[in-house]
Amino acid sequence: MDPFQMIHIDKAATEHMYIQIYKSIADLIRQGQIKSNVKLPPIRSLAEQLGVNNVTIVKAYDELEKEGYVHKKIGSGTYVKPMDHHGGAREPFEDVGRGLEQMDRGQIHIHSDMISFSSATPTPDLFPVEDFKNLLIEILDRDAGSVFGYQESQGYYPLRESLVSYLQQYGICTSVNHVQIITGAQQGIDVISKAFVEYGDAVIVEYPTYTGAIATFKSRGAKIIEIPILPDGMDMDKLEEKIQEYKPKLIYTMPNFQNPTGYSYNSQKKKQLLELAYKYNVLIVEDDYLSDLNFNGYDAATLKSMDMQDVTIYIKSFSKVFMPGLRLGFLVIPSKLHPQILAAKHASDISTSGLNQRAFDLYLRKGIWKHHIQFMQRIYEERFEIMVRCLNEYIIPLGVCCSMPQGGLNFWLCLPEGFSSNELYRKCEENNLLILPGSIFSSNQKESPCFRLSIAAVYPDQIKLGIKKLSEILERMIGKKESSNIHPYFPIL
Amino acid sequence: MDPFQMIHIDKAATEHMYIQIYKSIADLIRQGQIKSNVKLPPIRSLAEQLGVNNVTIVKAYDELEKEGYVHKKIGSGTYVKPMDHHGGAREPFEDVGRGLEQMDRGQIHIHSDMISFSSATPTPDLFPVEDFKNLLIEILDRDAGSVFGYQESQGYYPLRESLVSYLQQYGICTSVNHVQIITGAQQGIDVISKAFVEYGDAVIVEYPTYTGAIATFKSRGAKIIEIPILPDGMDMDKLEEKIQEYKPKLIYTMPNFQNPTGYSYNSQKKKQLLELAYKYNVLIVEDDYLSDLNFNGYDAATLKSMDMQDVTIYIKSFSKVFMPGLRLGFLVIPSKLHPQILAAKHASDISTSGLNQRAFDLYLRKGIWKHHIQFMQRIYEERFEIMVRCLNEYIIPLGVCCSMPQGGLNFWLCLPEGFSSNELYRKCEENNLLILPGSIFSSNQKESPCFRLSIAAVYPDQIKLGIKKLSEILERMIGKKESSNIHPYFPIL
Repeated sequence: MDPFQMIHIDKAATEHMYIQIYKSIADLIRQGQIKSNVKLPPIRSLAEQLGVNNVTIVKAYDELEKEGYVHKKIGSGTYVKPMDHHGGAREPFEDVGRGLEQMDRGQIHIHSDMISFSSATPTPDLFPVEDFKNLLIEILDRDAGSVFGYQESQGYYPLRESLVSYLQQYGICTSVNHVQIITGAQQGIDVISKAFVEYGDAVIVEYPTYTGAIATFKSRGAKIIEIPILPDGMDMDKLEEKIQEYKPKLIYTMPNFQNPTGYSYNSQKKKQLLELAYKYNVLIVEDDYLSDLNFNGYDAATLKSMDMQDVTIYIKSFSKVFMPGLRLGFLVIPSKLHPQILAAKHASDISTSGLNQRAFDLYLRKGIWKHHIQFMQRIYEERFEIMVRCLNEYIIPLGVCCSMPQGGLNFWLCLPEGFSSNELYRKCEENNLLILPGSIFSSNQKESPCFRLSIAAVYPDQIKLGIKKLSEILERMIGKKESSNIHPYFPIL
Repeated sequence: MDPFQMIHIDKAATEHMYIQIYKSIADLIRQGQIKSNVKLPPIRSLAEQLGVNNVTIVKAYDELEKEGYVHKKIGSGTYVKPMDHHGGAREPFEDVGRGLEQMDRGQIHIHSDMISFSSATPTPDLFPVEDFKNLLIEILDRDAGSVFGYQESQGYYPLRESLVSYLQQYGICTSVNHVQIITGAQQGIDVISKAFVEYGDAVIVEYPTYTGAIATFKSRGAKIIEIPILPDGMDMDKLEEKIQEYKPKLIYTMPNFQNPTGYSYNSQKKKQLLELAYKYNVLIVEDDYLSDLNFNGYDAATLKSMDMQDVTIYIKSFSKVFMPGLRLGFLVIPSKLHPQILAAKHASDISTSGLNQRAFDLYLRKGIWKHHIQFMQRIYEERFEIMVRCLNEYIIPLGVCCSMPQGGLNFWLCLPEGFSSNELYRKCEENNLLILPGSIFSSNQKESPCFRLSIAAVYPDQIKLGIKKLSEILERMIGKKESSNIHPYFPIL
């Protein structure tokens, strides 16, 4: 059968026709239905076959080219690129790096038959669209053009006010003047770096840590000092040693449900961390996006709430976990540092969308946010529990180690010695399973036996299915091992 | 009369009560009704007098303190700060710098009786709120949760597609892959700097130039080389000399209706600029936000449309002039530079609001944008013409020089030798008139005889009133001079 007869489009769908065609052909290439080096049909004939404009086909082919599935030969036509053995349209040796980089930047289309433990962004169906729409309408009726007019760089005053009272529930006592609105945690890190990190300055981060933070610090020309995180936080002696050695400008930390490990600092280490910051006059940058997802009654106090000497910049993103795509978050800033932060925010993008700020302010004021958080907590808690059960049942017995988190969305697993999670990533991708190998969570992208599974974008059924699949892949890869085979990379408490 | 009896609030107004109280007291202080060193009434008594909560008064006082009108003495009360002779609540010597910095960052409340030639942001009444609201509703009904879900860092594909066809009208031929969505011109400059400017790199800018660009380049640790802009563009010999001397990474330029001068490059200089970029392998960053406001039939071709060797990064912001507060713009990028730009955008804020992108896409597709632009062009053209007339009538005869722009929103005026525009700024502010002195448009903030007047935020009546007022201030300041008194700072063509 001509594989191009299998191209399927739905003219009633809201998705653009050329995207449907692109996806359909890409799937057929990945599935091997359309082979390497095959020439795609001429524009006109495929357009006729599908009953669409020529332009639609041109666009679909462009997209295929852009995504690396095909290449064009001038004067000859469009050809399917040679595939590597993983079934993906990648260069043989660069595939992991490039693929991950692209995935990380939202450049990879996730196919519907894929199970993605890699995404930390929840599925769109969880977004409270109707509520939000009504708020937008209310705001536009209430404030009209002002919504789009002059916006304070520091953020919409009433929103900052709402946030001050919101923060009191979390034991953070601050004032409107110390809140800076940002478009999300990534911008927070960027703005803080602009304000305080100069070329050549040292910055301490946990190892492994959030990729986006590494990228930003690197982009400032900072020297990145990595301190391994243990299941109860960084080793404080090592931290002190490194502070003495490198005199860092700041310490970037996620004390609760760290990304990617899910680890949390115990109370003592939190206190010690603050004391070291006081002692050596180092700024702490606390990135907190998951402390609301506390499932086991762990003490998820933030450093900011414990900080008596105002050395902590607190970053909170609302958008990541609860309202992705909203592009909204905030900083709580030690008062003396505010002018630098404000200048850096201004130099970054002047101000954050007034529409989103006003809508979110109303969302908080009306108490809808509280209900939404509770709703999301239930959703995530169910996934969390299923994940814990599945890992215990299928993965841990294979000799793969995991210190189960107390909450959050991330699980950090480590393969036995000698195995690389890059390799595992590739094997999983072949099986339509996405994970994130540890290499991307370090400053030099060094290979790691560990990998991250996130439950943000998987439904309960997919978790079961996906973890079973993963266990099969792992079994083939490492063979059955005794669960007592303790992993040397994996620190024991 | 007790001046505090004059505090006026309107309980039916949408504006927060404490903001009303803050503004009312601030006005009374500025007007001298409430004198320096006067103690504000105790919280409770003012709350009683106005029939509001104590907390409302606390907040109003906090705001007054933040804005520098009052200071608190612990255990004693809140006192009005000593005023300087300009009637503003500023430190005597730092006032220009601090005031400007704050104004520039949107931190200064512009009083209703002020005429602001300083703001480059149009008045909120020009925003097409109803149209935009309907589009938002349409988008949310059409795309539901996807609006807030996964967003490509490069930008929403259909929007990039719309932009490609939009750009064809401007003679810019590009493809979806070369368009990068950003949240506005400022972010564009920031992202480009992250991608290409390392610590110690040289960057060439026009002198004077956009403050926000200087801030960003500085923040990257760049060496900023300023080349004076003449009414027909930079001196190309000097440019070549500086390129040879400093080997800059990029040249930041606004070839049409430059900010702050309003000057435009002639066609020959545009060509020469490109040729120098080809010859010395320098990147051109073209910031184009005003070329749509071309009132005199000048050839406002963009460098990008003339660039045959793909060395120009084109920055376009929609939000600045036509839809402030929307936070949306785009880059057109030479193909080989795309990976770096994408990485820098990702490290800045992951992606731009999907809601705004989708709504704006529909705005373009439905042709509403075209109508809106035409509407705005008419509004601005009227202001432009009035401004030209008023300057010719009241200002030029005083010996103040101005090379009238061909379009855009900015007018650049230069005082005779020996006068500083910082001084003029102060005198204007005393008279509730805001202008921007030339000092803020240079990398070292050096004093300048020149200043910028913008017509973005003034109504026709205000232009007449404001320019008359300005002429009176100027007359007092410099005395009547012959218009033939040519200014040494002002280059003659």
